[in-house]
Amino acid sequence: MIQKPIKLFYWPSLQGRGEFVRLVLEYNNIPYEDVCRDKAKGVKPLLNILESSKTIFAPPILQIGELFLNQTPNILQYLGKILNFSGGSEANQRECHSIQLSIADFTSEIHNLHHPISSSLYYEDQIVEAILATNTFFENRFDKWFQFFERAIGNNPYITGSVLTYVDLSLFQIWAGMIHAYPNRMKERRIHFPKMDSLYFRVKEDEKLRTYLNSTRRIPFNEHGIFRYYPKLDGESQIS
Amino acid sequence: MIQKPIKLFYWPSLQGRGEFVRLVLEYNNIPYEDVCRDKAKGVKPLLNILESSKTIFAPPILQIGELFLNQTPNILQYLGKILNFSGGSEANQRECHSIQLSIADFTSEIHNLHHPISSSLYYEDQIVEAILATNTFFENRFDKWFQFFERAIGNNPYITGSVLTYVDLSLFQIWAGMIHAYPNRMKERRIHFPKMDSLYFRVKEDEKLRTYLNSTRRIPFNEHGIFRYYPKLDGESQIS
Repeated sequence: MIQKPIKLFYWPSLQGRGEFVRLVLEYNNIPYEDVCRDKAKGVKPLLNILESSKTIFAPPILQIGELFLNQTPNILQYLGKILNFSGGSEANQRECHSIQLSIADFTSEIHNLHHPISSSLYYEDQIVEAILATNTFFENRFDKWFQFFERAIGNNPYITGSVLTYVDLSLFQIWAGMIHAYPNRMKERRIHFPKMDSLYFRVKEDEKLRTYLNSTRRIPFNEHGIFRYYPKLDGESQIS
Repeated sequence: MIQKPIKLFYWPSLQGRGEFVRLVLEYNNIPYEDVCRDKAKGVKPLLNILESSKTIFAPPILQIGELFLNQTPNILQYLGKILNFSGGSEANQRECHSIQLSIADFTSEIHNLHHPISSSLYYEDQIVEAILATNTFFENRFDKWFQFFERAIGNNPYITGSVLTYVDLSLFQIWAGMIHAYPNRMKERRIHFPKMDSLYFRVKEDEKLRTYLNSTRRIPFNEHGIFRYYPKLDGESQIS
């Protein structure tokens, strides 16, 4: 396993992209310091890295000894390799990375639904556009994305076959996020994606993750992260 | 070098994300078939892959022998390794991949400026939102992005030092794209980013690329790709 001290630098009050990394560390029972959640430290150490690093544009950042990694798919590719958590063979590692990059695209697309004009403005300043973006997504994009993920799962319990990888944890996370953010829309939708749904339950009930998911280390979904529950975006504005 | 036949599958009438791959192949003088640009074939072979592949959500797709790669940063990471085109050491390879992933994020952010509501709707149906998104980007995001890229270049001619890598070609491409899409805005902006500007000229005038850039193989920038020139988004609507 990893002998060096591991530190995660991410915004302290939201799951966000950091959660994809946390899930991998927690599942593999790797000790790590979630630096910015230490109230005595706060986000200062993260901001220090962003100001001084040559290669890092945004968190999450994972420090392993002297090595600083950023960009979620890059961090997961690295962890997948050293933890043997991406299906073993080079072909499986490549497959995991490729799908994870599409999950990253999906994640950005979801974030844009509540921030279509700009991530630098408040949601409250772009609600009309957010409703339009979200309706269009569920009309034109949702099925395309999850048909793809279902095809990727295929007839196996996990994405590369019978062994769980970091991609399965990410697929769990995005399905959990969709269920949180769009409970009304997902009620009808999820029955059409039985493979996503069973993968979700398989991961959720995995004993290697259950302790974490029920702990205070798991930040609850909230309206600061990627998957936000805004009733107006969940189709309710059309009903009332 | 690569002994196996190489095929690129990408939309035939735009640079888009495929261009980041083309630049690497062209610079290294690698023979490849740009499949969909063969009018007898068209996009059919690309659509066939998308329908049948388990791991591929979207093009560009690069076929090397039996291997199918997708997701631009993933393709470039692979080519960087086998062509020794990512600065040699493992640390440099990781740095290149990390920065390339941020370039991919940047590219998506730029695409969103003309398609803020949805990539599945026409630009013409979201012009008002596109103007708002673009103005906000140039106010809040442009400097943040290019200060980062300038910091990444540092005092070296190229991103990892004295040797050109695939990341330098991508930085050339996004700066060329910005100059095409926002000639008016960029007139004032580019003087504040001298490192981007000299990298751009260094790559543009590199004799290993000049033939390609002047050939018909280089599709001109147009209003189908990522970097689109719409006068209304270039600040002209505010003037008139």
